[in-house]
Amino acid sequence: MKPVEWDDGVVRILDQTRLPDDQVYLRCRTPEEVGDAVRSMAVRGAPALGVAAAMGLALAAARSEAKGPSGLTRELEREGRRLVATRPTAVNMAWAVDRVLAAVQGVGSVDEIRRAALDEALRIALEDEQACLAMGALGAELVPAVANVLTHCNTGMLCTFGTGTALGVVYAAHESGKRVHVWVGETRPVLQGARLTAWELQRMGVPMTLIADTAPGHLMSQGRVDLVIVGADRIAANGDVANKIGTYQLAVLASHHGIPFYVAAPTSSVDLSTPAGADIRIEERDPREVTSPRGVRFAPEGTSAANPAFDVTPARLVSAIVTEQGIVRAPYRSGLRAAVRRASLGSRGRTSLRPAPTGRASRPARTGRAS
Amino acid sequence: MKPVEWDDGVVRILDQTRLPDDQVYLRCRTPEEVGDAVRSMAVRGAPALGVAAAMGLALAAARSEAKGPSGLTRELEREGRRLVATRPTAVNMAWAVDRVLAAVQGVGSVDEIRRAALDEALRIALEDEQACLAMGALGAELVPAVANVLTHCNTGMLCTFGTGTALGVVYAAHESGKRVHVWVGETRPVLQGARLTAWELQRMGVPMTLIADTAPGHLMSQGRVDLVIVGADRIAANGDVANKIGTYQLAVLASHHGIPFYVAAPTSSVDLSTPAGADIRIEERDPREVTSPRGVRFAPEGTSAANPAFDVTPARLVSAIVTEQGIVRAPYRSGLRAAVRRASLGSRGRTSLRPAPTGRASRPARTGRAS
Repeated sequence: MKPVEWDDGVVRILDQTRLPDDQVYLRCRTPEEVGDAVRSMAVRGAPALGVAAAMGLALAAARSEAKGPSGLTRELEREGRRLVATRPTAVNMAWAVDRVLAAVQGVGSVDEIRRAALDEALRIALEDEQACLAMGALGAELVPAVANVLTHCNTGMLCTFGTGTALGVVYAAHESGKRVHVWVGETRPVLQGARLTAWELQRMGVPMTLIADTAPGHLMSQGRVDLVIVGADRIAANGDVANKIGTYQLAVLASHHGIPFYVAAPTSSVDLSTPAGADIRIEERDPREVTSPRGVRFAPEGTSAANPAFDVTPARLVSAIVTEQGIVRAPYRSGLRAAVRRASLGSRGRTSLRPAPTGRASRPARTGRAS
Repeated sequence: MKPVEWDDGVVRILDQTRLPDDQVYLRCRTPEEVGDAVRSMAVRGAPALGVAAAMGLALAAARSEAKGPSGLTRELEREGRRLVATRPTAVNMAWAVDRVLAAVQGVGSVDEIRRAALDEALRIALEDEQACLAMGALGAELVPAVANVLTHCNTGMLCTFGTGTALGVVYAAHESGKRVHVWVGETRPVLQGARLTAWELQRMGVPMTLIADTAPGHLMSQGRVDLVIVGADRIAANGDVANKIGTYQLAVLASHHGIPFYVAAPTSSVDLSTPAGADIRIEERDPREVTSPRGVRFAPEGTSAANPAFDVTPARLVSAIVTEQGIVRAPYRSGLRAAVRRASLGSRGRTSLRPAPTGRASRPARTGRAS
C-alpha cells in the first residue's frame, strides 16, 4: 500500500479522506488533479506530499505540448510553483519540486526532460522508502524494551513512500521484539490519528489505544506515557519543528512531565533556508473542519472557528530529531546542517533508480527464478 | 432556560445530548428516569447534577408508597445512593443528596417529609442561581478590560440553575462592558464546548471562536490568550481540582506561558472530606464516545479507546478559585474551609424558598402590581 504511485502515466493516489471506511484510489491525469488531491488532503503527510509533487511534475512533463526544452522547463517551473502553493507549511513539496527542476536543468530534449523528471520523481520515492527504514532502525534504539508511546497525527505508511517517520520507528521497535503500546491521539480537526493511525496500527498488529486530544496530559500525569514521538512538516535551521496542530502542546506537556519528546523526519523536511520556527507560515484551513468534522455538523450553524493546521515546537522542547542520516541532538543547527549535507552527497552519488527498459531490467529476476 | 426544573410533580430536563440541533425536554416521573438522564448526560455539569439529584429525591418522596416516615427516609437514602452512583466524579450530587436527607431527618410525617424534600431541592436550586451571580460579580474583577478568555467544556446556563460558573464570570464581565472574546475549546469527546458553550455564547451575544482541543497551546504561544477559566466537578480539601478531561493540560500550558488559570465553582463542589486530587475517583466512560462521537464512527470498527471523563489539576497550577463566598487563593486548605463554613451558615440561616400556598405567596406580587 502506497499513498501515491506512478502508474503508467497516471499518478494514483489513495484517497485518505475516505479512510478508514473506503479504500478508493484517485487517478490523477494532470498536475492540477494532483494539486486538488493535495488541497483536499486525499494525500497528506510531508514526505508523501513531496513524492506527490514530484510525480505531479513528471505528469506535467509527460503531458506537455511544449515544442522545445526551454519551453518545457518554464512550464515545469510554473507547475511546480502551483503545486507548492497548494499547502504552504510542509517543505517537502518545495524540496521535491526543486529536485525535479534541478534534474531537468540543461537536459537537451523534450523527451529527455520527460525521462529525467520521472527518473527524479521515482528516485525521490525510493529514497523516501529507504529513509523510513533508516529512521526506523535508528529511532528504535530510543524506544525502551517495554514502552507506552504517545503519537499524534499520522506518520506511517500513509504519509510516506515507506513505513513512516514516527510510526516507522514504532514499527521497527515492535518488529525488533520490543513490547510497544501506542496511545494514538485522535488529532482533531481532521482526525488523522483516529482514522489513519488507528487503521494502520491495527493492520500491522501493533497494540494501540485511541484517545481524545484532551487526554495526553492526564495520561502523562499518571506515568502512563514513556515517550512521545511525532513527525514534522518542516524543521527550521535552528531545530524548531512545524508539525500538525497539537504537537506543540504535547511537547510542553512532555517537558513538564520529564518525558522524552522525539521528532522523526527525513532530511527532506529540514529547511536550512528557514532560520527559525517563527519564519514558517502556518496554514489556516477551512473552519468547517472544526465545526463539522467529515461533514457532520456538531457546533451550532454559523459558529465561527479558528483552524490553524500546524504549530511550531521550539527546539528546546525537542529531545532529539531522528533523521535517516542519524539522530540529531541539541545544538541542532550544526547537526541538521551536517545531516542535510550527507543526504545531498548520498543522493547525488546514486545512479538512476528508474525501471530500466524491460529487456535489461527483468533479466536478473528471470535468472533468479530459473536457477 | 433551566437545564432542570421541578414542574408539578415532574422533573423536567433539557436533553443536552440533542443540543444544539433540537431543544427537547425529558419529563422524568421517577428517580430512575432522573438517573437515566444523568447517566446519558442529558443533564450534566456539577451544579445542575446537584439540583437534578435533589429533585430526583423530591420525586422519590412524592411517589413513595411508604406508610411511615422511617420507611420513607430509608427509601430516600437508598434512592440517594443510587443517584450518586450514576456519575462518581462530581461531588455536587452527593452534596445535594446529603442536604435533602438532612432536611428530612426527624420530620414527623410522610407528607411533611415530602414537603421538606421538595423544599430543600428548590432551595438548592435557588441558592445555586444566587451563587452564580455572586461568582460572576467576584470573578469579573479578574477579567481585564479587553480579554481573550479560553474556556473548556460547558460551565454556563446549561450546567447550573443560574448563569454559570466559569461562563457566569464571562457573562458578568461582558455585561459590565468589558471587551471579552472567548476561545471555546470543543472538549472532545462529548463536545460540550462545540455543542453547548458555542450555543450559549451566541445566544448571549458574547464574541467567541471555536477551536479544536489541539489548538490552545499554539494560541497561548502566540500571546492570544489572556486567561483561562474553567469550572470544577470536585475540589479536594487541598485545592486540587477534578474537572472535565483536558482541564489539566490547559493548566500546565497556562503555567508554562505565565497565563492565569482560574477555577470558578460554588462551594457545593468543594469536598473537604476528600484530602487531595489523588483520592478522587475518575469516571471512565464508554469508549464509543471517543471512536464514534454522537454516533458517527470516525475510527475503524473495533478500535479500542480510553475515555477518562475527568482529570485532576493540582492546586499549585491554579491561580485562584472563585466561589460564591469569595475568591480563594493559595494556600487553599484554609481558604476553602472558611468558604464552605460561610456557605453552610448562610444556608442554615435561610427561610424556606419553596413557593408557599398560592394565596399567601402571590399576595405581595399582586400588591406590587396594584400600587
